[in-house]
Amino acid sequence: MADRSYSALVVTDPANLYYLTGYNAWSFYMPQCLVLPAEADPVLFARAMDAAGAGHTSWLPAEQVEGYPEELVHRPDVHPFDWIARRIRERELVAAGDRVGFEGDAHFFSARGYLALRAGLPDVDLEDSRELVNWVRVVKAAYELEQMRIAGAIAQLSMETALEAIAPGQRQCDVVAQISAAQARGTAEHGGDYPAVVPMLPTGEGAGTPHLTWTDQRFESGAATTIELAGVHRRYHSPLARTIMLG
Amino acid sequence: MADRSYSALVVTDPANLYYLTGYNAWSFYMPQCLVLPAEADPVLFARAMDAAGAGHTSWLPAEQVEGYPEELVHRPDVHPFDWIARRIRERELVAAGDRVGFEGDAHFFSARGYLALRAGLPDVDLEDSRELVNWVRVVKAAYELEQMRIAGAIAQLSMETALEAIAPGQRQCDVVAQISAAQARGTAEHGGDYPAVVPMLPTGEGAGTPHLTWTDQRFESGAATTIELAGVHRRYHSPLARTIMLG
Repeated sequence: MADRSYSALVVTDPANLYYLTGYNAWSFYMPQCLVLPAEADPVLFARAMDAAGAGHTSWLPAEQVEGYPEELVHRPDVHPFDWIARRIRERELVAAGDRVGFEGDAHFFSARGYLALRAGLPDVDLEDSRELVNWVRVVKAAYELEQMRIAGAIAQLSMETALEAIAPGQRQCDVVAQISAAQARGTAEHGGDYPAVVPMLPTGEGAGTPHLTWTDQRFESGAATTIELAGVHRRYHSPLARTIMLG
Repeated sequence: MADRSYSALVVTDPANLYYLTGYNAWSFYMPQCLVLPAEADPVLFARAMDAAGAGHTSWLPAEQVEGYPEELVHRPDVHPFDWIARRIRERELVAAGDRVGFEGDAHFFSARGYLALRAGLPDVDLEDSRELVNWVRVVKAAYELEQMRIAGAIAQLSMETALEAIAPGQRQCDVVAQISAAQARGTAEHGGDYPAVVPMLPTGEGAGTPHLTWTDQRFESGAATTIELAGVHRRYHSPLARTIMLG
């Protein structure tokens, strides 16, 4: 942040929120963000029903979590980021003339959210941070490497499950059922977490295409099949891919 | 579109892309959109590796699908929507002075994507469509009601699985493993699809908080537990929630 002369960062990527505060919930489909000033305590803004429970997963003390009112949810005329921008101003998290980074290509920070923030902080220099937090996350701490090793063990178990389940005549969805169960079950010591991407196993003609999911069709003998999955533990992912020929 | 005087719509919500074209792949984490002119054929823009396979799920003929080059992926200096805006212009899908709707609060249409589209079509009146396609989707066709009924049967099977699996002493992740498997397996006739939201089962102190996912902790006797899940078939969802007391 100092290198970029940012006075504050507005963080919206759910993985970055988890990295910075421990906040971990399926609430990212609604507008939410962490405002991280260079010289003051960060504040998490979320929908009121989620803010009430942020203490269950985040280390943030209650006074650093604010919930916006339910009446701002899914409204055509007002937006939660109108409210968030006003509270950023009232809490003096940024000041006129500040250079403030935002996550321009983060999922779940919508164009409308950006435009509301832009309109609510007209005297602030908003700049795309270009994945600044993600670049910081590239360097892993010992704790993180340990979570990834556990995730790797879960990935291996899940891939072994996939290779045992897949066979000509089996429905694709039944194979995915076994993979998904293995991913959630994890190991005897460490449970699995939900993956950022569902299992993918394009087969036959579709095998040349990435990112196809599955159907209830049956696998056919002689079909090349690509299996892509991830083991996940406490939101840390270890992905794994294998290509096999059936029959 | 006529009521709003839109010359075209830029559709980015993956569910709306599926509704309008049948395109169904886990490619929405990269910029993509359907440009739907009021008076011409629609064009789907996606990453090159995905565009090549759009024909596997979409009804769009090859000439109505364009793939942007891989070198635009995850670059700080250029963005896929720069390229898409140029192609919109070159294909004359919109004209100067046109009023064009975009999906301002759609997930996966980022602020950076919006700003690139805005800069690339400076003489076009871009206006937030306020979920226009979603409102159209509220009225279900007979085919859609049938998919939702199948999804409902899958939701019921998944909830029955959850209620049988959950018990004091069971790990939360092991219960989720069984729910996830039931969701993917579906019925004997119809396979399940991936849900837009993972199973949620906040328990004990967390039961007062929505949107918490799961851990590898064990369920405790006397704990109130909320189970939220969806049955899904061909991307159509039927959600279901139940609250139980354990032990």
